[in-house]
Amino acid sequence: MKTVEIITIGDEILTGHTVNTNFAFIGERLTAIDYRVIRETTVGDRPEDIVEAIHDATRRADVVIATGGLGPTHDDITRTAVVRAFGRPLVPNAEARKSLEEFFRVRGRTLDRINEEQALLPEGARAVPNPVGTAAGIHIEEKGRHFYALPGVPAEMRAMITDDIIPFLATLDKPTTTHGVLFTTGIPESTLYETVKPVLDRYPQVKVAFLPGYQGVKIRASASLGSMEESATAVESWKNELRAVLGSAVYSETDEAIEIPIGRMLVDKHAKMAIAESCTGGLIAQRITAIPGSSAYFTHGYVTYANQAKIDLLGVKQETLAQFGAVSEQVARQMAEGAGKKSGADYAVAVTGIAGPDGGTAEKPVGLVYIAIAGGGNTIHRRLMLGNDRDLNRRRAAQAALNLLRKRLLGEE
Amino acid sequence: MKTVEIITIGDEILTGHTVNTNFAFIGERLTAIDYRVIRETTVGDRPEDIVEAIHDATRRADVVIATGGLGPTHDDITRTAVVRAFGRPLVPNAEARKSLEEFFRVRGRTLDRINEEQALLPEGARAVPNPVGTAAGIHIEEKGRHFYALPGVPAEMRAMITDDIIPFLATLDKPTTTHGVLFTTGIPESTLYETVKPVLDRYPQVKVAFLPGYQGVKIRASASLGSMEESATAVESWKNELRAVLGSAVYSETDEAIEIPIGRMLVDKHAKMAIAESCTGGLIAQRITAIPGSSAYFTHGYVTYANQAKIDLLGVKQETLAQFGAVSEQVARQMAEGAGKKSGADYAVAVTGIAGPDGGTAEKPVGLVYIAIAGGGNTIHRRLMLGNDRDLNRRRAAQAALNLLRKRLLGEE
Repeated sequence: MKTVEIITIGDEILTGHTVNTNFAFIGERLTAIDYRVIRETTVGDRPEDIVEAIHDATRRADVVIATGGLGPTHDDITRTAVVRAFGRPLVPNAEARKSLEEFFRVRGRTLDRINEEQALLPEGARAVPNPVGTAAGIHIEEKGRHFYALPGVPAEMRAMITDDIIPFLATLDKPTTTHGVLFTTGIPESTLYETVKPVLDRYPQVKVAFLPGYQGVKIRASASLGSMEESATAVESWKNELRAVLGSAVYSETDEAIEIPIGRMLVDKHAKMAIAESCTGGLIAQRITAIPGSSAYFTHGYVTYANQAKIDLLGVKQETLAQFGAVSEQVARQMAEGAGKKSGADYAVAVTGIAGPDGGTAEKPVGLVYIAIAGGGNTIHRRLMLGNDRDLNRRRAAQAALNLLRKRLLGEE
Repeated sequence: MKTVEIITIGDEILTGHTVNTNFAFIGERLTAIDYRVIRETTVGDRPEDIVEAIHDATRRADVVIATGGLGPTHDDITRTAVVRAFGRPLVPNAEARKSLEEFFRVRGRTLDRINEEQALLPEGARAVPNPVGTAAGIHIEEKGRHFYALPGVPAEMRAMITDDIIPFLATLDKPTTTHGVLFTTGIPESTLYETVKPVLDRYPQVKVAFLPGYQGVKIRASASLGSMEESATAVESWKNELRAVLGSAVYSETDEAIEIPIGRMLVDKHAKMAIAESCTGGLIAQRITAIPGSSAYFTHGYVTYANQAKIDLLGVKQETLAQFGAVSEQVARQMAEGAGKKSGADYAVAVTGIAGPDGGTAEKPVGLVYIAIAGGGNTIHRRLMLGNDRDLNRRRAAQAALNLLRKRLLGEE
């Protein structure tokens, strides 16, 4: 398995004013053709830092890809650094010159002196064609290792990776790695780990990572065995065993949010859903409606933030609010039942809770949330005890409510 | 000016499966307190790579912040690497233990063996409290340099940077740089630039960046002159001139969303608002309720995705829907007026549109949105022609609707 390092060049990345999405793009593409990305380094616009980063990376990896600092607006600091790092002078490059002239010709412009400098490349380098902009990339092969410098503009970089670099690098090595992923929700990371550990122990050849977030825990696996077939068989069999242990805690095997399988099930059942939200304040409705085509199964959403709104819109009883409080299983259940009845939907989700930072009491602290589902049989509810962070409490409550709906749709709750 | 390096740990970043947003967050926060971020390095889960990255970074920078690889699973490798890099054994840490027990106590769970290991820290290290999760951060001071290791979960990392690390690091150095920011909305970037250019030309010593997003355009400035006082004076006077030119296009001068000044104005007026959403599907309500204390002015939200919901909940007339269609100024106005009337709120916001990707026609293409505000006088509406991206259309429609409400509250519309 060949290794690759990525170097990102630019002060605007270091100061956090631009999020580095180039790196994720390159990492994903290279991983897909079975290269192992071993390191990424971001440096600023100082030439000595760039030279040092190039030296370190080319010493460690088979392939090094640098992005940024190429082009007439960046003072071409990367070109200068490449010249120093490889000890090769700049010479006119016929290919780079030709593609530059073509770029300007198509746009009815003539080459100016600033752009003309971009036709100079380090001696012995190949020009990587840039179909989108003026700056050609630089490709240097030295002692069987490959170094690339590309512009940082995402559209230019992406075109060059896709059209030129990936097709070439894919010929250098024979892939043997397979990846797999299971998205789980509703089980805390440490419990999940205890549950699946016996399976993981039986698959020492499958490398596993747990990636927790408010949506749940993503379990990623990869196997790199003798051949592609062996790797794929190992990951498939690992997945089957994990699915058997985890059951419906696994909500997806592709990178999709839980609202997507929910939408599919509602469409299959020709059923509609409604949503009644207090502490999540529209977050669940927003997630459901973010999915194209959700109008086929979602009709009415009620953001009943005030008690009066719960009474007005959902028919929650004044006495129930007075006796148990707005954050109670009784109110959650009445909200779900009211939303189902008023909208005519087959299923209704309700959430009421104390997101914080204020509004908590000793009896009902910040983080206390009740969720309920009406429809598809009896009404069910759950009590959640979340944390102190308002934003996270809202996200986790929304995810738990959607997961309870999913389980009801699966016939498990 | 003190220097900082950031180390990101995790195979999922290297393989491009997760975009590294932690780094941009840390870079921005550190830059704001006048640290210079000189390098960021991402390494995978191999301990020797982490140890090497820690050694290199602590040799170069005054402060090193590592994120990722801390957490209660088998890939909790950062702790081990820190032990090796600093040659300090793991010992029980009373602070880490206490906060871990508290975390579990609040959630009614007991500490299990896996989580118990997280109370072990390298000898002489301080535990950085984690208000959101179980894994405490690690803070080691050695020869006047500071090393931090934090969990990679964004909410946990952010809380620790904001609550613990920034307040401490801000005391270590005497800053001479001042930053200023103006958040604008409703004016396209190129028009905005033409408008403010004469002011920018008068302040060559103030460095300016335009950062466009769906919320509008953020104008960032910084001055790094002889002293803090000089820098602050220059930025303040620059801001005054820009405010005079831009008027109410500036909605904030701190990193706060437009819903925060809206909330302040509603509180001042003792007024309440309601929200009626079709294509934004709960996004506006979700934004309003994300603000702590919003229950003081927000009571009822209506997500009327189906036509029948617009009729049921808002009293939109069947004839109007039939004659003009759901995406029309007439329906937007009836939605706003209905929401105000049904809820008893003083102001009501309404949005109806075609977010895409489907549902467009030649006459009413994807991206067509109507927004309306009722209350505070006559009902007003706007027609927006946005783009082809569903997500972006929803975000931009929500922002435009909130901005129209803001201007009505200011008495400008």
